[in-house]
Amino acid sequence: MARVNEHYLKLKATYLFSEIARRVKTFQTAHPEAKLIRLGIGDITDPLPPSVIRALHAAVDEMARAESFRGYGPETGYEFLTELIAKHDYGARGVRVELDEIFVSDGTKSDSASIQEIFAGDCVVAVTDPVYPVYLDSNVMAGRAGSPDAGGRYDRVVYLPCVAENAFEPALPDRPVDLVYLCFPNNPTGAVLTRPVLTRWVDWARRQGAVLLYDAAYEAYIRDPDIPHSIYEVEGAREVAIEFRSFSKTAGFTGTRCAFTVVPKEVRGRDAAGNPVSLNPLWFRRQSTKSNGVAYIIQRAAAAVYTEEGQREVRSAIDDRMENARIVRQGLEAAGLRVYGGRNAPYIWVKTPPGLSSWDFFDKLLNEAHVVGTPGSGFGPSGEGYFRLTAFGRRAEAEEAIERVKTRVAL
Amino acid sequence: MARVNEHYLKLKATYLFSEIARRVKTFQTAHPEAKLIRLGIGDITDPLPPSVIRALHAAVDEMARAESFRGYGPETGYEFLTELIAKHDYGARGVRVELDEIFVSDGTKSDSASIQEIFAGDCVVAVTDPVYPVYLDSNVMAGRAGSPDAGGRYDRVVYLPCVAENAFEPALPDRPVDLVYLCFPNNPTGAVLTRPVLTRWVDWARRQGAVLLYDAAYEAYIRDPDIPHSIYEVEGAREVAIEFRSFSKTAGFTGTRCAFTVVPKEVRGRDAAGNPVSLNPLWFRRQSTKSNGVAYIIQRAAAAVYTEEGQREVRSAIDDRMENARIVRQGLEAAGLRVYGGRNAPYIWVKTPPGLSSWDFFDKLLNEAHVVGTPGSGFGPSGEGYFRLTAFGRRAEAEEAIERVKTRVAL
Repeated sequence: MARVNEHYLKLKATYLFSEIARRVKTFQTAHPEAKLIRLGIGDITDPLPPSVIRALHAAVDEMARAESFRGYGPETGYEFLTELIAKHDYGARGVRVELDEIFVSDGTKSDSASIQEIFAGDCVVAVTDPVYPVYLDSNVMAGRAGSPDAGGRYDRVVYLPCVAENAFEPALPDRPVDLVYLCFPNNPTGAVLTRPVLTRWVDWARRQGAVLLYDAAYEAYIRDPDIPHSIYEVEGAREVAIEFRSFSKTAGFTGTRCAFTVVPKEVRGRDAAGNPVSLNPLWFRRQSTKSNGVAYIIQRAAAAVYTEEGQREVRSAIDDRMENARIVRQGLEAAGLRVYGGRNAPYIWVKTPPGLSSWDFFDKLLNEAHVVGTPGSGFGPSGEGYFRLTAFGRRAEAEEAIERVKTRVAL
Repeated sequence: MARVNEHYLKLKATYLFSEIARRVKTFQTAHPEAKLIRLGIGDITDPLPPSVIRALHAAVDEMARAESFRGYGPETGYEFLTELIAKHDYGARGVRVELDEIFVSDGTKSDSASIQEIFAGDCVVAVTDPVYPVYLDSNVMAGRAGSPDAGGRYDRVVYLPCVAENAFEPALPDRPVDLVYLCFPNNPTGAVLTRPVLTRWVDWARRQGAVLLYDAAYEAYIRDPDIPHSIYEVEGAREVAIEFRSFSKTAGFTGTRCAFTVVPKEVRGRDAAGNPVSLNPLWFRRQSTKSNGVAYIIQRAAAAVYTEEGQREVRSAIDDRMENARIVRQGLEAAGLRVYGGRNAPYIWVKTPPGLSSWDFFDKLLNEAHVVGTPGSGFGPSGEGYFRLTAFGRRAEAEEAIERVKTRVAL
């Protein structure tokens, strides 16, 4: 009988969101009259911007006529989109990115999960802790993580704790590492990396010959002008970094699916003989062999994000969410909680009160305020004692949630 | 320095379509007045069906309003689509498929490339020869194929020749094999498998404990009522077969991207200890970890294919293409060529005249008739001496191409 990939059997059950759903359901059955407010979701609730809607309708009409119909497109994206990306996301910030270094895809989830395929099976991987689970799980599936201990830590993975004590800033690895996943602005902690810190990472990677897998899906939420939006704003990053970007949290594409990954031609790995191998053609080969690219109409929708109107609409939606973040952050602080993030990221990372675990605090907020968040321990061992709230909900809900926390929760 | 996946370095260059482009360009430079007809493409040229266009506009409008906006959807597809698939593609043919056995995705290319991930690295893979290159390349990348010899055959792959001498019907493997990729109706040969032959494969797989990876992307082109459209029409196939289906060649979704894969719960592999492991939850874990599913608007477009009007429009487009196929097939036969396929598939597979290789015939058609096709040798060693034409072009072009072959080509 065909052998299965046994590394899959080493994956931890994804109990986080199902356990949240179970506890919420139990609560609702006991309290059918309670009006729940969900501040745990990482999903967009605003409709697509009007300029995107118009572009979609226009592109659909093109698909209705033989003379403008589009079949298979370039596997890595139409130039009408990559040109806009190169100009607005990079050129405008003084960063040079060539069109064939941009790979349009259906999501940063897919790209950050699949990027590991172009590396050897015995590469050593480092992840921050807490972490977006996809980076870790995709490496577990590929056999790079080894086996989990009782606490859920894989023995071949290097964990970089991000906690209040180190200002949620991962330390450089203390042993040889080949691949490091960094997500900044960070999900779930809401932390950002300053230019000097990012420079330290790039310099370390150049010394070590490591590759930085830099997830910048939340860059549009950066308010502080000194925080780099792209890792390529740092000198030398083109030699060591792959960057992931998404239209999901920026333009509301979570249900529309478009993202891109930048692989500069200077980023290199090595073959067994030690010869350098450029990663750009490897990722091109991966994407062109395993994908037929993103739907034409979706790429037209993404292109509309770069129009003057699209940019205005997107900025306004992000401003709105950051105002939600401010309300939640300041409200929780006023209630006496220690709160992190929420200044340059749509995530608010709350320290649970002394003696309360992440799940204890989840239950407390649910029972006393009827507010649903996400226990920090679900993102990794170092997330224990923290709790994630998001800024993606509606204004009135953010305000009411804070009012309830202030008036109903005994802290 | 981070080691790369060296299996990528064993991939053969994808010279086929670039070599075609190079020869066509050279010809056009020498004969700028020549009007080329491209009968080599596997891409759709008709616009999307009107019912699909209407569904897209309606879904775009839903995305414009907060109350009907959709963010993240179920990673493996909305039930409004999987219900239609289960009913129309399977139920209507007497086949039972559960909703959680259907995995909606962005393409059969992605799915057939990624399905190997859930199997062990040392599984033995068999492919037909000639073959759609993705099955082979994805296994080369994963290290299952071994190394290529001078003729381009990988030493760990079992090749199953499909040539005129065996009626393009692959023989059962003569040694132990774990995974077999079968594509019927076949690209590139246009061959189909009868029910008794398919039954022989299913019975063999049950005896061997092998898994059949059955690509049925072209099932809608089957005209003969005795040819199964789904492998699950064969008794016992639910225990051994995974089936791939696509909206690309049916409803013109090559640039719109929607497909699905069926993994019945009964299909099993084994772990190292020999215990059976159901493949359905492994594929669910793979898809939900590495993808956020297909855009809502695209799934609505796919659902429209199942309306009465959508079905009528799709059937009419396929009838049109199959009339193209008839014209090409009969025209080439009248010109004295041996022609296969084109009866239950949009591909016409032509035996090159004695003494002419696939590329010789390519040059002859290009130079004498200004017609571009695809050399069979590009699909594998057993494709040498054959030539692929397709039925996806426009009627007038198919007719003119045949007229030119009859009047201008010395055969």
